[in-house]
Amino acid sequence: MSASGIRDYLDGPHKQARDVVRAGLAANAELFEFAVRQPRAEYRESVLEMLRAITAEGHPARGFPKEYGGGGDLGGFIAGFETLAFGDLSLMVKAGVQFGLFAGAILHLGTERHHEEYLADAISGRLLGCFAMTETGHGSNVQALGTTATYDVATGEFVVHTPDAAARKDYIGNAAQHGRLAAVFAQLVVGGERHGVHCLLVPIRDESGEALPGVTLSDCGPKLGLNGVDNGRIVFDQVRVPRSALLDRYAQVDAEGNYFSAIENPDRRFFTMLGTLVQGRVSVGGAAINASKVALAIAIKYGAERRQFGAPGSAEETVLLDYRMHQRRLLPLLARTYAMHFAQGALVDEFVRVSADRSSEHDQRALEAQAAGTKALGTWHATETIQMCREACGGAGYLAENRLATLKADTDVFTTFEGDNTVLLQLVAKGLLTDYRESFGKLDPLGTARFIAAQAVEVAVEKAALRPLIERLRDAVPNRNDAADPDAGLRDDAYHSGLLRFREQHMLSGVARRLKAGIDAGDDAFDVFNRCQDHVIAAGRAHVDRVVLEAFQAAVESAPEEIQQVLKDVYDLHALATIEGERAWYLEHGRLSPGRSKAITALVNELCAVVRPVAVELVDAFGVPGAAVEVPMVVRSQHE
Amino acid sequence: MSASGIRDYLDGPHKQARDVVRAGLAANAELFEFAVRQPRAEYRESVLEMLRAITAEGHPARGFPKEYGGGGDLGGFIAGFETLAFGDLSLMVKAGVQFGLFAGAILHLGTERHHEEYLADAISGRLLGCFAMTETGHGSNVQALGTTATYDVATGEFVVHTPDAAARKDYIGNAAQHGRLAAVFAQLVVGGERHGVHCLLVPIRDESGEALPGVTLSDCGPKLGLNGVDNGRIVFDQVRVPRSALLDRYAQVDAEGNYFSAIENPDRRFFTMLGTLVQGRVSVGGAAINASKVALAIAIKYGAERRQFGAPGSAEETVLLDYRMHQRRLLPLLARTYAMHFAQGALVDEFVRVSADRSSEHDQRALEAQAAGTKALGTWHATETIQMCREACGGAGYLAENRLATLKADTDVFTTFEGDNTVLLQLVAKGLLTDYRESFGKLDPLGTARFIAAQAVEVAVEKAALRPLIERLRDAVPNRNDAADPDAGLRDDAYHSGLLRFREQHMLSGVARRLKAGIDAGDDAFDVFNRCQDHVIAAGRAHVDRVVLEAFQAAVESAPEEIQQVLKDVYDLHALATIEGERAWYLEHGRLSPGRSKAITALVNELCAVVRPVAVELVDAFGVPGAAVEVPMVVRSQHE
Repeated sequence: MSASGIRDYLDGPHKQARDVVRAGLAANAELFEFAVRQPRAEYRESVLEMLRAITAEGHPARGFPKEYGGGGDLGGFIAGFETLAFGDLSLMVKAGVQFGLFAGAILHLGTERHHEEYLADAISGRLLGCFAMTETGHGSNVQALGTTATYDVATGEFVVHTPDAAARKDYIGNAAQHGRLAAVFAQLVVGGERHGVHCLLVPIRDESGEALPGVTLSDCGPKLGLNGVDNGRIVFDQVRVPRSALLDRYAQVDAEGNYFSAIENPDRRFFTMLGTLVQGRVSVGGAAINASKVALAIAIKYGAERRQFGAPGSAEETVLLDYRMHQRRLLPLLARTYAMHFAQGALVDEFVRVSADRSSEHDQRALEAQAAGTKALGTWHATETIQMCREACGGAGYLAENRLATLKADTDVFTTFEGDNTVLLQLVAKGLLTDYRESFGKLDPLGTARFIAAQAVEVAVEKAALRPLIERLRDAVPNRNDAADPDAGLRDDAYHSGLLRFREQHMLSGVARRLKAGIDAGDDAFDVFNRCQDHVIAAGRAHVDRVVLEAFQAAVESAPEEIQQVLKDVYDLHALATIEGERAWYLEHGRLSPGRSKAITALVNELCAVVRPVAVELVDAFGVPGAAVEVPMVVRSQHE
Repeated sequence: MSASGIRDYLDGPHKQARDVVRAGLAANAELFEFAVRQPRAEYRESVLEMLRAITAEGHPARGFPKEYGGGGDLGGFIAGFETLAFGDLSLMVKAGVQFGLFAGAILHLGTERHHEEYLADAISGRLLGCFAMTETGHGSNVQALGTTATYDVATGEFVVHTPDAAARKDYIGNAAQHGRLAAVFAQLVVGGERHGVHCLLVPIRDESGEALPGVTLSDCGPKLGLNGVDNGRIVFDQVRVPRSALLDRYAQVDAEGNYFSAIENPDRRFFTMLGTLVQGRVSVGGAAINASKVALAIAIKYGAERRQFGAPGSAEETVLLDYRMHQRRLLPLLARTYAMHFAQGALVDEFVRVSADRSSEHDQRALEAQAAGTKALGTWHATETIQMCREACGGAGYLAENRLATLKADTDVFTTFEGDNTVLLQLVAKGLLTDYRESFGKLDPLGTARFIAAQAVEVAVEKAALRPLIERLRDAVPNRNDAADPDAGLRDDAYHSGLLRFREQHMLSGVARRLKAGIDAGDDAFDVFNRCQDHVIAAGRAHVDRVVLEAFQAAVESAPEEIQQVLKDVYDLHALATIEGERAWYLEHGRLSPGRSKAITALVNELCAVVRPVAVELVDAFGVPGAAVEVPMVVRSQHE
């Protein structure tokens, strides 16, 4: 077993893309000092400078079409972006805004003339831009945006306007200082008729950085973290842009004010447009998982050296990581980080596949759900892991110089941006309940409660399925009779899958049944949905838990022989810690006996001890650049 | 039901002390801007200025003896200190360092001459000081400190020295900039003999702020939060102080170099000294609970106004707090905040009682355990609650102007300082297992594994007790037969207590049994302890959970009639959410049937809906000053 063997396997097909970014980060060690040592204004400028430096290294171009200077390698682009999360996270987020969101909107929502005019400059960082979607009063509910873009047939222009305070664009990266052009999401009004949310390119600053007439820009001010990103607010007062400013891939307006779209249903059109932006969600989940790796690398290296208290009669104090409680706090999170890494890899593969072949709307919707679920679990995982690492490093973990503080502050908003996690898990559950056939599904989870209920029941009936399926699973899963030998089969992959699949299916069918019963009883659809909301979200989560688990299983199976055993140990720790975390549910549903439930807890403890001796190798295998990990407390602990 | 009625009840006997501090905070609204608007250097000066302002208002003097200008009101002093947590937390922590730790060490460990010389100046803020205990290499394990204080009989001086890098004093508040005198904890060496850790007063800076000869001071640099406190490092190079510098209440050294102490056993002496410092732990727990109140006041007021998504067919979007998931995320934490508030009140009462009557060593040790447990749960509660409030407020919660970010960053270290929470819970369990008879118990939880095991078994046998007690509890607790009516008695206080007591006793006796079995089998004592460490900590937590629950029960019982029902609803939510959180354990141990377990979850949902209409009144009753809560997002949501 060697760390480099595991590292190669973790890096997978996009190893080269990752290594380019790693080398860039390693060559700029001062990068890791920005957040700590610089006042906000300078920090922003340093981040901008680094942003331009990475364009020179070619990272962002990798994901764009070759005709605009790109490399046409979507998978490598995302892997490289994720790797940026080993460095300063403001740089990562600013790169996400510029290349993923701003350039991505032009690429996916625009047509050739937009590509010709803007893409090369956006990719090279010469033209800095904003992705102006969120408004002060409208966060998750994007369809309710208030900004309007009204076509004036007399001049052939769109008039972009902020009608009230709630419609102010808010939290927009690059808006406070650097952005010159904004991709603005607004309600399109043509000939007095509203056509829903569309995207237009609106210049907001001149070359000297001054706001253009009619545009009011302000700064969101200090944030908990990510202070190297200039988030700001934008208010439009009747700002005129030419008709060509509309990103018109999915809808066009001609000079006479006729509106055309190949997608007739407005909801479907909206979700088709949004769907092209799934890349942002895919990327943020991966970045969060990588930020967890940095925190674990720091905390585990520190815990493997730092001594505190001693065994009786021993002159030396005991290494922290030899304490059971310390293992319990860190090692299941390390195992879950491996699980999330492989789940993210599978998601990126699927994203590349679906992007290349846009034929199936079903697959596109399923991909969006997979991205939403991985983003939600990956970002919550980051919040939990970094918090635990901070606590496990005590007072030293609180000092900025040791990086955990910065990681914590910077990543905290990941659970919110690119989609609030609870809303995303609702989306996941909804997709499963309707088998993605509501292809133009509203983001609004309530407005369609009735539809979901009907669809869910139909899906359930059609699959013939739910009850027999559950029965089949029941057979596959050792049950109450496990009392005879509570340890039997606990490390069996099929057993783990069986339990997680049973839970997922049981929860989904339960939700479907409750929704249908409520609707059949004539209750208000909102109330019906709201009564089940916690259940819906739990069902979404149960699904993603299962997908993550099975991605890890597949990765163990295809691993090179020399690292297979160590990965299997880590996998088992992840699987059993996951089941342990939900053991109340399994006990309630007769899927675990009390004896077996306790045996699982005991085995998690044992597996922590099994993984402990290779814990440092396991974090080394993440390939986090040295400068990110060699913080003062780690260096000191290694020399004491 | 009125918020002011509840508020009066929450404020309790120390209402006046709380109101003085509230008024001070309200009169200095700029205080709430310090952390956000000021660079670190200025921020520190502003905090110092405010520190001096509060001395003028008489808050810190309240807790000290009348002969040194104090008020002799310990309970009011702590209540006032807790109330500081409604304001800037750097100010609160700096006040804790100066008045609680530094002046407290002089008061409790020194004798009359120290009181005469320093107390009045320390209380007035004229003499700023440090509490120099923690070292770079020695955090939780205070008995292992490396700094030495060696008596030189030739000159009648102590020589204070830092022998190696691990012995550097670290994270010391007031050390980087403002402190002039330090209470230094060091290994006392007299006539070549080591007498364990003692405390001496060592000048570190002259009047102009320069480090004194032999003293090297440095800055810990930026931290995740609390950047208004100047934490620093101190290295001593053979620094000489007169013999009178030793705080000699518990041990004296005469001019000829003879060491005396009325407490012969060095461990017992050490823990007697440490015990006098319990006030710090009592105060930090209370401050953490109050910080949670601020976060909840902000998030609940925002959630009660902010709209997102809508019921089908409704023109208006739905208020966040009407969503079940939003209620689920915030309201059980609100209920637990009430529980912690009352538990903290009971702790302060007990602290005042034991402080007035120091006769019983058993009571003193029990108080220390109660303080440790309340501190651990209160500070973890703050971390969890503030995190949830941030997420529940989305992107707005991430902006510094809305205060949650600052609260999160500032409170994060509370789980670490004044005792790492996991170490504290071990202390709690150890006290219970030995019935506090190990009056000189080592902080080191391992060194005494054998002793604990022996004692624990003895205690168990002596109480006659454990098995019959568990049997009695078993009778009191509805058991498997609850299947007939899963809802019966779910809101019965005695049922809640019965479950929590059963769990506590079962876990403690389980730990005792495992420790004894391991020792009897001749296993290495460290291994025996380490195998049970997670179990020990869980047992400590189970105990504190029960103490908190019963404090809330007692508070409901003695509440004025007009608020009793609303408090009972909040109590029930807390009790059932606590049981729900541990339902896996109850299912494993046959104390809940699956049906009853599910019924508890359903009832928690119902109770959220019951508490929802009074949620705003419940946070108003905390009496958080307006300026702390009226952050931009709250004000805006109320006017939209």
